[in-house]
Amino acid sequence: MTIIKVFEKPKLNNPILIEGLPGVGNIGRVAVGYLIDELKAKKFAQLYSEHFFPFVMLHGESQIHLLKNEFFYWKAKKKGQRDLILLVGDCQSLSTNGHYEIVNKVLDFVEKLGVKEIFTVGGLATGEIEENPEVLGAVTHPELIKKYSRFGIRFAAEERVGYIVGASGLFLGLGKERGMKGVCLLGETSGFPIVTDPKAAEVVLKSLTKILNVKINMDKLDERMKEMEKFIKKIENLQKKALMQISKEEKAPVEGKEQLRYIG
Amino acid sequence: MTIIKVFEKPKLNNPILIEGLPGVGNIGRVAVGYLIDELKAKKFAQLYSEHFFPFVMLHGESQIHLLKNEFFYWKAKKKGQRDLILLVGDCQSLSTNGHYEIVNKVLDFVEKLGVKEIFTVGGLATGEIEENPEVLGAVTHPELIKKYSRFGIRFAAEERVGYIVGASGLFLGLGKERGMKGVCLLGETSGFPIVTDPKAAEVVLKSLTKILNVKINMDKLDERMKEMEKFIKKIENLQKKALMQISKEEKAPVEGKEQLRYIG
Amino acid sequence: MTIIKVFEKPKLNNPILIEGLPGVGNIGRVAVGYLIDELKAKKFAQLYSEHFFPFVMLHGESQIHLLKNEFFYWKAKKKGQRDLILLVGDCQSLSTNGHYEIVNKVLDFVEKLGVKEIFTVGGLATGEIEENPEVLGAVTHPELIKKYSRFGIRFAAEERVGYIVGASGLFLGLGKERGMKGVCLLGETSGFPIVTDPKAAEVVLKSLTKILNVKINMDKLDERMKEMEKFIKKIENLQKKALMQISKEEKAPVEGKEQLRYIG
Amino acid sequence: MTIIKVFEKPKLNNPILIEGLPGVGNIGRVAVGYLIDELKAKKFAQLYSEHFFPFVMLHGESQIHLLKNEFFYWKAKKKGQRDLILLVGDCQSLSTNGHYEIVNKVLDFVEKLGVKEIFTVGGLATGEIEENPEVLGAVTHPELIKKYSRFGIRFAAEERVGYIVGASGLFLGLGKERGMKGVCLLGETSGFPIVTDPKAAEVVLKSLTKILNVKINMDKLDERMKEMEKFIKKIENLQKKALMQISKEEKAPVEGKEQLRYIG
Repeated sequence: MTIIKVFEKPKLNNPILIEGLPGVGNIGRVAVGYLIDELKAKKFAQLYSEHFFPFVMLHGESQIHLLKNEFFYWKAKKKGQRDLILLVGDCQSLSTNGHYEIVNKVLDFVEKLGVKEIFTVGGLATGEIEENPEVLGAVTHPELIKKYSRFGIRFAAEERVGYIVGASGLFLGLGKERGMKGVCLLGETSGFPIVTDPKAAEVVLKSLTKILNVKINMDKLDERMKEMEKFIKKIENLQKKALMQISKEEKAPVEGKEQLRYIG
Repeated sequence: MTIIKVFEKPKLNNPILIEGLPGVGNIGRVAVGYLIDELKAKKFAQLYSEHFFPFVMLHGESQIHLLKNEFFYWKAKKKGQRDLILLVGDCQSLSTNGHYEIVNKVLDFVEKLGVKEIFTVGGLATGEIEENPEVLGAVTHPELIKKYSRFGIRFAAEERVGYIVGASGLFLGLGKERGMKGVCLLGETSGFPIVTDPKAAEVVLKSLTKILNVKINMDKLDERMKEMEKFIKKIENLQKKALMQISKEEKAPVEGKEQLRYIG
Repeated sequence: MTIIKVFEKPKLNNPILIEGLPGVGNIGRVAVGYLIDELKAKKFAQLYSEHFFPFVMLHGESQIHLLKNEFFYWKAKKKGQRDLILLVGDCQSLSTNGHYEIVNKVLDFVEKLGVKEIFTVGGLATGEIEENPEVLGAVTHPELIKKYSRFGIRFAAEERVGYIVGASGLFLGLGKERGMKGVCLLGETSGFPIVTDPKAAEVVLKSLTKILNVKINMDKLDERMKEMEKFIKKIENLQKKALMQISKEEKAPVEGKEQLRYIG
Repeated sequence: MTIIKVFEKPKLNNPILIEGLPGVGNIGRVAVGYLIDELKAKKFAQLYSEHFFPFVMLHGESQIHLLKNEFFYWKAKKKGQRDLILLVGDCQSLSTNGHYEIVNKVLDFVEKLGVKEIFTVGGLATGEIEENPEVLGAVTHPELIKKYSRFGIRFAAEERVGYIVGASGLFLGLGKERGMKGVCLLGETSGFPIVTDPKAAEVVLKSLTKILNVKINMDKLDERMKEMEKFIKKIENLQKKALMQISKEEKAPVEGKEQLRYIG
């Protein structure tokens, strides 16, 4: 069961889908989230799924927050730009089959809105701190390599690693089955348990904004990322504790007060 | 597969849903169960689900008992009171996605009966024995904080913990998606393997009965809780043994006679 | 996905369902299997399910055997007897939710054939070798205790253990939801890894045949059980190896030749 | 959710289904893959499923590759030959119930194309290096033993092992439920972590091509197998790493750079 609730039905002309869901280094989530803020894209739909963690988060002012993915749109302002649908969210599927269900549901939705091209954004874990991270790319069709090589993307992902797990890969794989074309942009990142990687997010954003021919102010990226990092760290810790609680049914304090702060 | 069997279709006017399913410290289950008894609320429907443990319990007089959740209703007796639907039960979902399925099924059901407001009751594990436990709260909408602050609820749950697992959280999260409003009442409890916590259940009941403007006799709470505790302990032990039997396929006596008392 | 394939549609008058699927000590499987043989009951349907292990067995003459449950019928021969539907099989559900799906599917099927009464047969593991095992019972409705006490059944199962896992319990629990009545007969057995227990199967058969008012020859029980035991041991070993292969993806010989005899 | 995308609807006369999905020693995959190449069979449909691993692979030229199974057809060229549908693929189901769903979906599909006979190809792990591996066989119906004994197949699989896990067994078991007939050809192989076994693939191909009365050039088998082996090794390693990443949520470098090359 995956449900998309639509608040508004924007008229979009041949829009591109940009996906930035949580993943390695949270590069996609941070980069696309920042892009949404800078473009002042408008939220028009949201998705929740039984394949998400079965908990709600608590935010400031004791407000509950259901885990969800959110759709934003932005209309081209000048020639050389494209209408955009941007997808960000709190999490991906907890189950393996849930990934396919959610991605197909989103593709059904955006296909009706006219999407034929997809960019997914993720991270490539290298195991080292990257001073000058590159953007590696992967494509659904060979001709896209030539088209996008000049945007600072090195199409050599397969030399480094052999697969892409989750939404960033499946949007392209399942999108291609529907006749869509797509590119995955991967920012090199250490993969160490740092929640976000400013350098990786920045270098991916640089390529992406060049491709989309939009200009955004990168100055606030560090600051915005620190804010996002607080939220993302929280949700990742909660997912870990919730996984422990769900799978081990642990109700006794064994490790100290921190672990005990759970509710149900 | 989740099925709600309806015995009676009460005519209710703008009822409030009060949820008390098993969770941390079983606060909700005990508190709402006691409220049902004291109000003499009437059972009108029951739910079972493939997401519950696949066993039946045995009660006195060798009677089998299918795991279920039960719906009770109570009609307002005087001005300032509201019609109520009260939900209690033996267990929650065994699977993560089952939580969403069951909560959505219940919301479909109570939405048709006119429910637009929800109170869920649970426990917040602190790791310490609480001599004077507080009631912490969380809300679907900010304006509810002001509305309910005067009932002895401290809306600061997010300072203490970041998420609510299972029904107590999802009823609010998924209810909000349907335009409902709700509050989660959490009684501070140690979280130690004591099955029920009288003080926590009592302090939550005090707030809840004030909010609902009903008067109930609290004297029998301790006694009723000891009875419930016997049943709840049994079902929790059975769930542990059943989980062992289901997951490890253990058919040999390895730990002594106690562990062997299982049937299938 | 659970499918029942029907070969014949017998006209049955108010039949009783007798369930004997694999469980503790395989008491039910052996006892009901023997009853089917002695009564010369006729197979009329079979069931398979995606919730069974995803392997086929190999029998003599290299013949593949899909895991299934089988339905037999027997028509009453004289006054005081009842038409019977007897259910035996290779296995139960691998997943927890699958138990509910399969039992409900069977109940849909037998309800259409007129079933309103159910007997399930299982084992109660005591942890000791039982020289004179008893038959313990559990019921859906209290009045059944009085009705069946005189058949050598002691209705005290709840003193010994608190739950029944799988089909033997769920047929009664879910059957009761449909207005059916039922009794579970449990033969005391050690629970040690002996595949079948002749004494337990025999004492349960004695009660069951008295209840059903049928006379069968018990002499061949030991012999038939040894034959069944060979088959049952094989399928249990295969389930263990298959579980290992499925969950650990073990393809290397680590323990010796025996473990390696697997195919895929 | 399992989807078969059809590119072409060939007119086939009483075709035989030959199944060669990944399994023990990858015998089936390699043998049937080679047969497809040598016969120049034409691809006409492909299948993907939510039960496959939720990742895409990366191939040369940074191209993403969705995990799939592929259908090829070949029309008989002379008397004594039969039209063929050949099935190969990247993987089988990750979940136990998914095996049943996928096999039934394929059987629905090929049944409409006229398939009544099935050959599945797999490996039998013996734990020893086999210098002169045999082909063992298993059948849906006893009369098939006599029919196929003269093709170098020894019908004694049940002496060696008791079950067949996954597609190679379920195609026959579930096919038989639909009135189809089938044979499983198993090449003896060590089962050691060598990805492919040339001798086993060759001896199975010899029997299969005799049965099908087709002549193919076996010279390029070794060479083709080395190419396939590279791809198969990659996908198996990726499945292992992906399983680790999916189940343990491991995002930190703990074992060295190799483990870190993952993307999402």
